[in-house]
Amino acid sequence: MNTVELIKKKRDGKSLTSDEIKYLISSYTKKKIPDYQFSAFLMAAFLKGMNKKETAALTEAMLYSGKIINLNSIPGSKIDKHSTGGVGDKTSLILAPIVAAAGVNVPMISGRGLGHSGGTLDKLESIPGFRTNLSLTKYKQVIKSCGAVLAGQTKDVAPADKLIYSLRDVTATIESIPLITASIMSKKLAEGIDGLVLDVKTGSGAFMKKTSDAVELANSLIKTAKTFNKKVIAFITDMNQPLGKYVGNWLEVYESIMVLRGEQKDDLFELSTLLSGAMIYLGGKASSIKEGVEISKQLIKNGKAFNKFLEIVKLQNGNISIIKHPEKYPKSKVIEYIYADKSGYINSMDNYQIGMSALELGAGRKTKEDKIEPKAGLIFKYKIGDRVKKGDVLVELRGESENTIESVKQSLNKAILISNKKTAKPTLIKKILK
Amino acid sequence: MNTVELIKKKRDGKSLTSDEIKYLISSYTKKKIPDYQFSAFLMAAFLKGMNKKETAALTEAMLYSGKIINLNSIPGSKIDKHSTGGVGDKTSLILAPIVAAAGVNVPMISGRGLGHSGGTLDKLESIPGFRTNLSLTKYKQVIKSCGAVLAGQTKDVAPADKLIYSLRDVTATIESIPLITASIMSKKLAEGIDGLVLDVKTGSGAFMKKTSDAVELANSLIKTAKTFNKKVIAFITDMNQPLGKYVGNWLEVYESIMVLRGEQKDDLFELSTLLSGAMIYLGGKASSIKEGVEISKQLIKNGKAFNKFLEIVKLQNGNISIIKHPEKYPKSKVIEYIYADKSGYINSMDNYQIGMSALELGAGRKTKEDKIEPKAGLIFKYKIGDRVKKGDVLVELRGESENTIESVKQSLNKAILISNKKTAKPTLIKKILK
Repeated sequence: MNTVELIKKKRDGKSLTSDEIKYLISSYTKKKIPDYQFSAFLMAAFLKGMNKKETAALTEAMLYSGKIINLNSIPGSKIDKHSTGGVGDKTSLILAPIVAAAGVNVPMISGRGLGHSGGTLDKLESIPGFRTNLSLTKYKQVIKSCGAVLAGQTKDVAPADKLIYSLRDVTATIESIPLITASIMSKKLAEGIDGLVLDVKTGSGAFMKKTSDAVELANSLIKTAKTFNKKVIAFITDMNQPLGKYVGNWLEVYESIMVLRGEQKDDLFELSTLLSGAMIYLGGKASSIKEGVEISKQLIKNGKAFNKFLEIVKLQNGNISIIKHPEKYPKSKVIEYIYADKSGYINSMDNYQIGMSALELGAGRKTKEDKIEPKAGLIFKYKIGDRVKKGDVLVELRGESENTIESVKQSLNKAILISNKKTAKPTLIKKILK
Repeated sequence: MNTVELIKKKRDGKSLTSDEIKYLISSYTKKKIPDYQFSAFLMAAFLKGMNKKETAALTEAMLYSGKIINLNSIPGSKIDKHSTGGVGDKTSLILAPIVAAAGVNVPMISGRGLGHSGGTLDKLESIPGFRTNLSLTKYKQVIKSCGAVLAGQTKDVAPADKLIYSLRDVTATIESIPLITASIMSKKLAEGIDGLVLDVKTGSGAFMKKTSDAVELANSLIKTAKTFNKKVIAFITDMNQPLGKYVGNWLEVYESIMVLRGEQKDDLFELSTLLSGAMIYLGGKASSIKEGVEISKQLIKNGKAFNKFLEIVKLQNGNISIIKHPEKYPKSKVIEYIYADKSGYINSMDNYQIGMSALELGAGRKTKEDKIEPKAGLIFKYKIGDRVKKGDVLVELRGESENTIESVKQSLNKAILISNKKTAKPTLIKKILK
């Protein structure tokens, strides 16, 4: 096949055959197509789109660029969840133990923080000793022992995705529904799952700012999952403010512990039990999502979910005494506060700015080489719709440097708007799609 | 400036500022922007277009990537012609001496053959001893002595264009009006000209198959030339059959000699004198194109144009005795013929196939490294609209290998269609645009 002719075909808005897509991906992965040709193809695909069949072929080509993990030796359903990312989104830490406690396997491969959005691996690694970099043997051992595993992507899984993602990042070809779909699905399908629950975020702290874009992405993911005979449910959920009240790596582990112990029943609790309920349903251990949610709540109440979390942490080398006594975790060097400058209602939050502020404090990376400060982050005392009085603490900032915390305070101050008018709380679950 | 943000801006259909375009071109030329980012930009520009201001900025940035030849020391107007290329298009060899004989300078920098389309440099180099690779000093000397020069592009002239053209060639981003415009105009403006006559070809042997595309390109070239305060006239001309009857390097020099001697008065004569007439008009030596054409015909008739050609050839080290006695040029090893398989009218020619056939015989290059066979090519005995009888010779093929000539005969046979119906001759000059 002729690479230039294939670029031309996509450039002219025609559909590529599965074989043509396979040729492009496999040749690029083998470095037989140079970056400059593949980036021209990516831009053509970005601007001209790809239909359902092309997206499935792209997913398949990327999936088969690496190994598919075989979990056949492990009995029972294997269900995972994928979130498109946001601020304070720590549901993976909560639902993996719940779902495993309900008897459904959760083989979860997660990523690191990206820009304003946090990453599950960075959160887990704030637990002293916790290892996310597991061999395939260890990965299978953990899931066999306790029904869940929380690990990082190995180089064997969808290597084409890593290569293509790096190129997309520097060629302005990230925000493309078919390219995002193939990137997500190739990795998730490589886990050897039976079903997938999708949490597609929308709002100021999400990659998809508009709900219509989030729905389009969700539908593309659902279609592709179905092409591969996977059970799938997608939720469109709100990301106009942080999920829960804690943003930052250890802070989010801490909040997850509180939810798993049944000590916090807010939006984070609601979303986590909804997602775990859907996973339990897809895994065949509940007859409906609703029943799955009830089971989830029960598993929190009776302590089984928290015990499962301790089990996972222990199997992945984490220190379980700090999980039992999270108040003993080291404290940040500098703690500062933002106060309400007037009384009223929290009207809106610039959630992207909140994510970037947490990153500035040390919770994220500006370059790949940056080291994460696990203690750093933000604690929100109020959320949208809450009534506040002048002088109330709105946010607690935790960092390691006075200068940084001062500059973050400045920019974060402008990110929270107080209004005299009563403001409705945003709807957390906007849509359910199957 | 941030390269990814600029790619994104063009990707989203926004206009780039002149400074942004300058940054992209100058950084790419200095290898500070990698190929893979620039090719993503090229595809975005291809699909989203560039407006008049952006095209002018792109031209300017490419122009100033190299040296601009200063011809101020040479008195009189400097006018050049540019053709978008085709099959049998040897007008440069004819009009340069005519226009110089009329007292207008012709500082002409030409290119080599590209695919099915011939190149002026390859034609000139079929003249024994003729040098096209001139130093800037020699270049100026030749034009100062005789009023015309026919040379190749040096690496100092618009180096950005060379780099960008190579990348466009392998990323399916050639056929873009703004990119073609900037490529042509940056090179032509670097010659230090006062005015430019454009010959934009349309038809089966042209890069622009449709007249509407040719008109769009011509208008873009005109607008850009005017932005740089250059006088400009564009002709849209037919390329549905070879121009003249000879295709191949020495064969085209031979035909040019016949026209310059006044021995051939066909479409090639008509177009050459029209283009030279327009150049003489732009150079201020005629009060209209029509008067310029009359002067051109006079200069052929009185032998001054042919003498000027001898002068140019001599100054550029060519053997003038072969120009005076072209019948003494070595003959091809193999000569073959295609005969009419029925009586009727020549209805159409696949001019792209004709160009590719000449290339196969040795008149062009398949790879950059291929050597040209100067004698090889095709001589057409009839043109579209001509009446032929069964058994008449339609084409004479000249090559060096029996096998090649046989296979070329096969494919060329199908490229010429004879019909029972009388067929009109195609209109040579389709449009004049200013």
